[in-house]
Amino acid sequence: MDRYFEAFGVGQIFGSGRLRIDTERCKTFAAEFDPQPFHLDEEAARETIFGGLAISGWHTAAVTMRLLVDCEFKPAGGIISLGLDELRWPRPVRLEDELCVESEVLEVRLLKSRAEHGLVKV
Amino acid sequence: MDRYFEAFGVGQIFGSGRLRIDTERCKTFAAEFDPQPFHLDEEAARETIFGGLAISGWHTAAVTMRLLVDCEFKPAGGIISLGLDELRWPRPVRLEDELCVESEVLEVRLLKSRAEHGLVKV
Repeated sequence: MDRYFEAFGVGQIFGSGRLRIDTERCKTFAAEFDPQPFHLDEEAARETIFGGLAISGWHTAAVTMRLLVDCEFKPAGGIISLGLDELRWPRPVRLEDELCVESEVLEVRLLKSRAEHGLVKV
Repeated sequence: MDRYFEAFGVGQIFGSGRLRIDTERCKTFAAEFDPQPFHLDEEAARETIFGGLAISGWHTAAVTMRLLVDCEFKPAGGIISLGLDELRWPRPVRLEDELCVESEVLEVRLLKSRAEHGLVKV
């Protein structure tokens, strides 16, 4: 069920489901968006800093969005992001890794620039 | 040709090619990673804040990576990102929009944590 502005409060935490990216999809995503040897081919990846196939950070970012859309966060009107204050990829994501997302509400306010629209920072 | 550490300098600017995202790919990307009405369906999108189909921000981010990989930036060892200090989507990207990237080198330094690896901030 969609959540309206009033239903959000600082400190709320939303979990998510879990997703794994398979080898084939790792490679096809990389071929389209991030064609570098460490995302495309096991053999070639072994010779790189990763020492093996690693999933593109943009692929894991996109999967993060999917997990967020599917979780209980569900703001009415949809998840329309203005941006991220910071994005970090501290470690490579491997094919055996399972991804999940935890979102914490940090700020809730009405937008000055748009009547009837609120901002929920997570 | 790959560029080694010494070949980067603050103030260098790299342009890119241009890419457009077609309607079909907009929808299939969204169905996989960002399934919200304003990315999936023209009719449904009309009733949303966007007033029409808009490309997912994660799709434009992924295309940005593709443009960066294909441009003359080409650091030896590959583009291995630690993250972004800030990511903003100031306006929706529409199907008629063509995407291109301009990257400016802001900082060049050796990494303390990893011998023989440099960091190029763009």
